[in-house]
Amino acid sequence: MTMKLTALSNVAGLAKTLPQADLAALEAARARQNSLTKPPGSLGRLEDLACFMASWRGVDRPTISRAQAVVFAGNHGICAQGVNPYPQAVTAQMVLNFQHGGAAINQLCRANGADLSVIALELDRPTADFTEGPAMTEAETLAAMHEGAAAVDLTADVLILGEMGIGNSTIAAAMAAALFGGEVAAWVGAGTGSDSDGMKRKIVAIEKGLARHTGLDAMGVLAALGGREQAAICGAVLAARAARIPVILDGFICTAAASALYAADKALLDHCLVGHCSAEPGHLKLLTALDKRAVLEFDMRLGEGSGAALALGILRAALECHNGMATFGEAGVSEA
Amino acid sequence: MTMKLTALSNVAGLAKTLPQADLAALEAARARQNSLTKPPGSLGRLEDLACFMASWRGVDRPTISRAQAVVFAGNHGICAQGVNPYPQAVTAQMVLNFQHGGAAINQLCRANGADLSVIALELDRPTADFTEGPAMTEAETLAAMHEGAAAVDLTADVLILGEMGIGNSTIAAAMAAALFGGEVAAWVGAGTGSDSDGMKRKIVAIEKGLARHTGLDAMGVLAALGGREQAAICGAVLAARAARIPVILDGFICTAAASALYAADKALLDHCLVGHCSAEPGHLKLLTALDKRAVLEFDMRLGEGSGAALALGILRAALECHNGMATFGEAGVSEA
Repeated sequence: MTMKLTALSNVAGLAKTLPQADLAALEAARARQNSLTKPPGSLGRLEDLACFMASWRGVDRPTISRAQAVVFAGNHGICAQGVNPYPQAVTAQMVLNFQHGGAAINQLCRANGADLSVIALELDRPTADFTEGPAMTEAETLAAMHEGAAAVDLTADVLILGEMGIGNSTIAAAMAAALFGGEVAAWVGAGTGSDSDGMKRKIVAIEKGLARHTGLDAMGVLAALGGREQAAICGAVLAARAARIPVILDGFICTAAASALYAADKALLDHCLVGHCSAEPGHLKLLTALDKRAVLEFDMRLGEGSGAALALGILRAALECHNGMATFGEAGVSEA
Repeated sequence: MTMKLTALSNVAGLAKTLPQADLAALEAARARQNSLTKPPGSLGRLEDLACFMASWRGVDRPTISRAQAVVFAGNHGICAQGVNPYPQAVTAQMVLNFQHGGAAINQLCRANGADLSVIALELDRPTADFTEGPAMTEAETLAAMHEGAAAVDLTADVLILGEMGIGNSTIAAAMAAALFGGEVAAWVGAGTGSDSDGMKRKIVAIEKGLARHTGLDAMGVLAALGGREQAAICGAVLAARAARIPVILDGFICTAAASALYAADKALLDHCLVGHCSAEPGHLKLLTALDKRAVLEFDMRLGEGSGAALALGILRAALECHNGMATFGEAGVSEA
């Protein structure tokens, strides 16, 4: 991927240069849906998904020959504040688990036909503790964004994004609070399983971070409060957009990462679906802020791209109907 | 399938003789879920689906080698009341479309690995108009139930049920109103696309039917207000239960058919999931009456088993995670 960003301040301007939805393909797909042997609209959101794919792939009958899933992993200085029930070593242990095929995302990618890439981002060099200073420098943020962009397979028809990083539900809540405001407590959930004391530590840490880092623009929030996997997700979203590859974001943490782009220019997430609405309570609030409805609501809260990979199966089914069904004319079925 | 029912009044008693959930297998499946490399509970309803399958298949690690989908088609005398926007000939035309592979259910079965059986039930002999008399005799009802039972492949690991029958959203609303009470209008929706006059005709017809057929037990409602595809669905649900095959019911019409069994003895639907919550407004009300939560909510309202076939993909994904993931011990991942 050829994305070359030299400054975070350039991100907002990208919306004007990147591809837009193809409205002619969208219209043709909608017309096809209305010709198929079913009452118009009766496939509900499957129809919308097929038309969404048409608009971004720029063809009236889009297909998924290749689906790519990328999981970005990072470590976070904020763990020094005791926000994580699992030890930080689990990030690297889970990366090994991904590489050996033992995690949920491996099974879900196999079940729904996605190729999985796992990108570990300097796990032995956690970001800085944002209660003490910016999590990343601008150069570190840009480097992680470029790594994310480079991970995108430009031959894919759809991109699934996920993350792994012990402590990163705190990162997500901090970013969401900084970008969209509101009570910090409303963005904080149990993550991998914090008890009420753990959740209090998360809130205290985030409030310290917000007090320390004020007056930031959207991408400044990513650098000051985010992490490498968050920056990589942003880079991958932009690289996919440049190639007209629709993206399926995962749950709270993945969506919070991408929401930095939305806050920079909301059009930057126009090509993104959200695969599921997480049980982590901040996710629904975040979806409302982004004006997006998740494909699935399944009470999941794992990350790894698991909800996005599950939604891929639904997207595939939508396209099978769109492309494979007979029209009323072809089937000799009478209309209403 | 060896089910031999000689009278509808025998159905309620079947609950005591049919297999029950295997609680030991359920417990073992739950223990396995808690050992897998994820925070306990973080796969949400995927965990519940895997445990549900374990309890009915009677093994801690259930698999789906064979999924069968059966679509039952019938015609209805109630169409004489002008309740149907599409002509009655469409039932047979859609059966041909199923046989030629052109319908939504064909694509969804292919996408999610189900074998499709299509059973047309005397389409040239519609049931009686229930505003004038019982839709079916007891003998006709039993015959259709036996045909439904005979359609079940006893080697399947899961059974998907669907229906096709012009006019049968009126049948479903009539059955639901008779079984569960409440205002008729609350059970009536647009079906394949009725306008407000059409919906008024549906309500009038159902009110006439309810006034004519009073004091019926649950299976009496099936005979008086139902149809052949409704009876066949009931027969298939019972045959599947006898073989410990979990069932995925489809939308409003399929669920309303099976709800006659629930009203006879609610345990008769213990082995049934509901694949999706239909956009037809009566379905959510019906799910509440049955104390069931649908797997998916996708604003679909097509029937044919389409929502159930879509849910099959989710069920497969749940089992892939359940069976394929590494435990904490196997993967060398630290616990919380």
